Amino acid sequence: MMRRLNTQDINFSQDLAKLLSLSEEDLSSIEAVVTNILQEVKTHGDAAVLRLTNQFDRLHATSVQELELSKEKLQEALTALPAEQKVALESAAQRVRSYHERQKIESGCTSWEYVDEHGTTLGQQVTPLDRVGIYVPGGKAAYPSSVLMNAIPAKVAGVKEVIMVVPTPDGTHNPLVLAAAAVAGVDRIFTIGGAQAVGALAYGTATIPAVDKIVGPGNAYVASAKRRVFGIVGIDMIAGPSEILVICDGTTNPDWVAMDLFSQAEHDELAQSILLCPSEHYLNEVSHSISKLLPQMPRKAVIEKSLRDRGAMILVKDMAQACEISNQIAPEHMEISAENPRQWLKLIRHAGAIFLGKFTSESLGDYCAGPNHVLPTSRTARFSSPLGVYDFIKRSSLIEVSQTGANQLGKIASVLAHGEGLQGHARAAEMRIQED
Amino acid sequence: MMRRLNTQDINFSQDLAKLLSLSEEDLSSIEAVVTNILQEVKTHGDAAVLRLTNQFDRLHATSVQELELSKEKLQEALTALPAEQKVALESAAQRVRSYHERQKIESGCTSWEYVDEHGTTLGQQVTPLDRVGIYVPGGKAAYPSSVLMNAIPAKVAGVKEVIMVVPTPDGTHNPLVLAAAAVAGVDRIFTIGGAQAVGALAYGTATIPAVDKIVGPGNAYVASAKRRVFGIVGIDMIAGPSEILVICDGTTNPDWVAMDLFSQAEHDELAQSILLCPSEHYLNEVSHSISKLLPQMPRKAVIEKSLRDRGAMILVKDMAQACEISNQIAPEHMEISAENPRQWLKLIRHAGAIFLGKFTSESLGDYCAGPNHVLPTSRTARFSSPLGVYDFIKRSSLIEVSQTGANQLGKIASVLAHGEGLQGHARAAEMRIQED
Repeated sequence: MMRRLNTQDINFSQDLAKLLSLSEEDLSSIEAVVTNILQEVKTHGDAAVLRLTNQFDRLHATSVQELELSKEKLQEALTALPAEQKVALESAAQRVRSYHERQKIESGCTSWEYVDEHGTTLGQQVTPLDRVGIYVPGGKAAYPSSVLMNAIPAKVAGVKEVIMVVPTPDGTHNPLVLAAAAVAGVDRIFTIGGAQAVGALAYGTATIPAVDKIVGPGNAYVASAKRRVFGIVGIDMIAGPSEILVICDGTTNPDWVAMDLFSQAEHDELAQSILLCPSEHYLNEVSHSISKLLPQMPRKAVIEKSLRDRGAMILVKDMAQACEISNQIAPEHMEISAENPRQWLKLIRHAGAIFLGKFTSESLGDYCAGPNHVLPTSRTARFSSPLGVYDFIKRSSLIEVSQTGANQLGKIASVLAHGEGLQGHARAAEMRIQED
Repeated sequence: MMRRLNTQDINFSQDLAKLLSLSEEDLSSIEAVVTNILQEVKTHGDAAVLRLTNQFDRLHATSVQELELSKEKLQEALTALPAEQKVALESAAQRVRSYHERQKIESGCTSWEYVDEHGTTLGQQVTPLDRVGIYVPGGKAAYPSSVLMNAIPAKVAGVKEVIMVVPTPDGTHNPLVLAAAAVAGVDRIFTIGGAQAVGALAYGTATIPAVDKIVGPGNAYVASAKRRVFGIVGIDMIAGPSEILVICDGTTNPDWVAMDLFSQAEHDELAQSILLCPSEHYLNEVSHSISKLLPQMPRKAVIEKSLRDRGAMILVKDMAQACEISNQIAPEHMEISAENPRQWLKLIRHAGAIFLGKFTSESLGDYCAGPNHVLPTSRTARFSSPLGVYDFIKRSSLIEVSQTGANQLGKIASVLAHGEGLQGHARAAEMRIQED
């Protein structure tokens, strides 16, 4: 069912490029709609949010206040969950929190300074963002795990107020999503969505407070709105279809690998699953597993279309070549399902998350291993990182120049400032030179 | 000349809001032009870059290769500088490099991992970006110091190839800019600019290689182009007019403070200089210094217009209130020109760079103290940070689940995946549970 490529084929490069290309959507009509919605929300605030929410989500609310869910409501949703789900949600949250607490320390989310040879102090002060908005999609892509993955790093960073927005088309609430908000410590939640929710969070309304950054996935309207408000608030990445790339040496149970490909493909028809292996025999085994396991899958129609249209098995010369191709693709999720996976890890430069060894299925990382499941897609792992605590802090440079420092630095600054024709800069430095 | 505000006035909040507001430019015509240019560069590559560069910069080049400057040319520019300038440039570069090397360590730009109680390894692998583009404006805003501030953190991060673009209208090269590129270790330099340069770096052409991230300031066309290509490549912040906010307790020589306000105002007429002090007497002294010093300034026309239209002196109740107002403004540059400035530092949450004590003029930080002078403007210090080594690395999550870990995590993942209706995810986790 999945197409086969071979790196030895003369057309391999073109075939690979074709596999990776996504037809560009024409976004101009979406952009025009979004521009209007944002303008309306900016100008009319609550009134616009109310009207648009009633219209798009088919509600009959009479005020934006009515669209806010109380903390008690979230707590009730948590209490009402079956015990097994409640325990799983809390265990996952605990592991995600513990990982991000470690990340806060290890990725330098703390202030630092040092004193140079002239007694001048230099460093950076790190502070959390004041207030953050989390967009959670409604409908079929409403994932409680995403609530945890977006809210917990913000809370670990020290963000005082986390505001969640989630559309509830036809008034349908997802109890697992509300329960996850309670577990993650979300402070306020509004049942609004679309570009109007992004606008409300960016500009603020009488009821909905303006935030400093908006994170979380959404449809094309949400993505376009986030791109528009970037600069007024911070945003995370614009997410594309989800991807997995599995590199196998042929030692992992082929059923396990087939299921890992399914778990990506079942997200939606544009999701991409790619398997690389130096053994044709093993690729055949995985194909066999796919044929055997697919009929059991409730989402088999989506999986089949995704694997057929967007999936591929690539026969490579050796494992090193597989790593090279993976770097070109810069996948969101990458499994090295092989013995001694670390020998290959050192060849990997670009990937959102790397899953090492046969026991590490992507799905364990998606829910509860601890690392974030919000990852760079569409080759953006070349320049961006998983969502993390570092996305919810910012740095201020610190400079405290000593009298000796002012003498030394003043001379350098003066020469360079005159060179740039900025005499005010030069004079400000020169005035502080006080040599006897 | 500068307007006076008083926090005790009944209209203070409105006055402050008015002071901070910038009339929104109508960008729609710029956006249409930029969309066309990007499309042309994407479709026609070198041919489009050549045609647009010849047209906008009034050149007569016959190929894009001709627009590349050799490394020898940069080295020649450095050698030809007056000794004083050469020494100043190299000293500044040395200090900037040393600060950013420290930053690389202190802000966690290195890989980390740990092993949890089940023997599962978790962490992040940190790698530099492969290739980065630096946009350097031509003409009057061509600052050699900006070349250092953009290129050095990239090199410290370990970026292999730094590609600089700088327009040369009418073929005029700025020798200090070329010399700075040599000092900073820029790898390749093309004399192109505008949206066409951003497009060339984002999509790549036959001659100009595609980069992974584009940083550096530019005019409205460049800013619009960067916003458009965001996602194909990474970008830094979109910069607005430069700002300084000075908090004084009245102990700093008023001439020094006046000159610090000038050094911001001289950038351009939209630049903003704000002084806050609890002493009206001191504000009067600074006003006097301004009147006395302004006539000596070569850029007095720009300074005067900037201070008159965009500047303000604000009389505050006390220093704590000054800090509170500063947090509302979230200025790009903030001086605490006071005795024991650290008592106020702890009240500051949002600022691009904080200059502590009377000897620390902003201009020392602009050129050679060490920290980066590329800073968040227009209140974006609420959510973003100075340009730094952390902008030129990215992280990949690492997960290596042990057999025990697969048993434990598999059960949690299975419950949550079934809750989300993703049976492929659940099965991939369940298959790895192997209890006796």
